[in-house]
Amino acid sequence: MNLLSNLPQNLPEELTTVLLKGDQVRIERIVSTGHKSLEGFWYDEQEHEWVMVLQGAARLQFEDRVVELKVGDWINIPAHKKHRVEWTSPDEPTVWLAVFYR
Amino acid sequence: MNLLSNLPQNLPEELTTVLLKGDQVRIERIVSTGHKSLEGFWYDEQEHEWVMVLQGAARLQFEDRVVELKVGDWINIPAHKKHRVEWTSPDEPTVWLAVFYR
Repeated sequence: MNLLSNLPQNLPEELTTVLLKGDQVRIERIVSTGHKSLEGFWYDEQEHEWVMVLQGAARLQFEDRVVELKVGDWINIPAHKKHRVEWTSPDEPTVWLAVFYR
Repeated sequence: MNLLSNLPQNLPEELTTVLLKGDQVRIERIVSTGHKSLEGFWYDEQEHEWVMVLQGAARLQFEDRVVELKVGDWINIPAHKKHRVEWTSPDEPTVWLAVFYR
């Protein structure tokens, strides 16, 4: 599977595809078409997450700052570091590559 | 650091940058500018490697087949599965994202 071809352009919800599932690591592709976290919703994850933007653009909100991500940008989010997706591009699908690990 | 900006165009050797180092996982960016494995050299790694091409193009050789990789293509290489880099594009830097795990 190519991670960037045949992308859906309009999704009711984010599309998550598990690319690899190991004992200690899980790699996912996530496609957002303008999706963002619900008002007041915060992720508080059990696993660490290293995530990069392969296509599109996004803004992540943390309790103390906002981080803009464009193609090629990445960020490491330690477990239990609260965050939410404030914005993803409405103009094209945003493709995330996420590596969850312990 | 953006993984795709300010790329070197001509490197004496492949450039490896460790982006994340955990107990069970290591994420690297590797930039090749036409590099390939030496004739007769085979990687035989202790760790599993999930790798994708972020930019450029490449061909990986395994004992039983050759795999072409373009932007967005990925492959999972189990530990000790012998492989070599048969070719990377001479026309632009090839950027690999590699996740090594146990």
